[in-house]
Amino acid sequence: MKNPLIITIGREYGSGGRQIGEIVAKKLGIAYYDKKLINLAAEKSGLSHEFIANNEQRVRGGLMHSFAASAAYTGGFFSGQYMPLSESIFISQAQVIRDIAAKESAVIVGRCADYVLSDRPNTVNIFIYAPQDFRVKRIMELYNLDEAAALKSISTSDKERGNHYFRYTDQKWGKAQNYDICINSALLGVEKTADMLINMARLKDASL
Amino acid sequence: MKNPLIITIGREYGSGGRQIGEIVAKKLGIAYYDKKLINLAAEKSGLSHEFIANNEQRVRGGLMHSFAASAAYTGGFFSGQYMPLSESIFISQAQVIRDIAAKESAVIVGRCADYVLSDRPNTVNIFIYAPQDFRVKRIMELYNLDEAAALKSISTSDKERGNHYFRYTDQKWGKAQNYDICINSALLGVEKTADMLINMARLKDASL
Repeated sequence: MKNPLIITIGREYGSGGRQIGEIVAKKLGIAYYDKKLINLAAEKSGLSHEFIANNEQRVRGGLMHSFAASAAYTGGFFSGQYMPLSESIFISQAQVIRDIAAKESAVIVGRCADYVLSDRPNTVNIFIYAPQDFRVKRIMELYNLDEAAALKSISTSDKERGNHYFRYTDQKWGKAQNYDICINSALLGVEKTADMLINMARLKDASL
Repeated sequence: MKNPLIITIGREYGSGGRQIGEIVAKKLGIAYYDKKLINLAAEKSGLSHEFIANNEQRVRGGLMHSFAASAAYTGGFFSGQYMPLSESIFISQAQVIRDIAAKESAVIVGRCADYVLSDRPNTVNIFIYAPQDFRVKRIMELYNLDEAAALKSISTSDKERGNHYFRYTDQKWGKAQNYDICINSALLGVEKTADMLINMARLKDASL
């Protein structure tokens, strides 16, 4: 396969975007990546799985940000040995994403994959969102939380994802024009949203 | 049919949104409305077809806006006999849209139909956009214009649509979270985007 189809998925917390991505990949018979990327990136960069899991979306502008601003920065990449660890993680993940895209069709959830692969042909960028009541209900059921805790986790997670995306892409997370398709998962529910995206993928790439 | 499926389509000028709406309606065998609404609204309000065509999206804040601001305004509707003509047109069109939605499945393009029908069950709100190069190419071919004229018509028309939408809905035109699906028509092209939306409509309403 010369130019495999890559579907990137950005998603609001609780929208079911990760689950939709898994179903799409499974039914299309293509690879699926999300947390796997952390492991792959960890292997490449030599950072521990735990360190990456704890740090990759905790971009809140504190110490690391100051450090990044003062570091030597060239053409999108840090030069020299003083690159902050969060940047190192991002660059490792970006390399993993490019490696996947070069070799196989895949669904890639999160990790700014849309940005990393921008201008790559045969890439479909999707953003999945949902009204708050739909997300709260899902989070409460999935994680056995009460309503207040679900609301708090939604707010925290969306903020982290938005900050992470903006920091590395300079673009607003969830802005329609940055994606090919944005969809409210509450319209059809998780299973049927996946079915719609599978139909889309086959319209885009008849070999699937 | 107790609660027919209504698909509303907002679209950037040149994205092919109108054409996509026509194909979707035709292939699903349901009604299609866009300029027809002008005629229906004209009949209801007694305003001439020409007057409505010339005025309905020319909302630029001039005389009519001042007039609107000084008119008696209650609960979203003007009271009294001094309602500006542009508001009268909007209210007539909104009534036409509600009448359609009460009686038959339909695709309705433009006219803030998503806002007019907000909270109506079995309504799918779609926004169609495309990168500028795709839109310029379509406009040049469709209307036999040169590139500069196509760019100008895109800018003027989008501004008018955005102003019109904001004036009547107080919402930003094209903001992803105001729609169920936003799609870049350049991803699949006009025909296949229509096919994708037909698949979506059948996932939403198995009777279609």
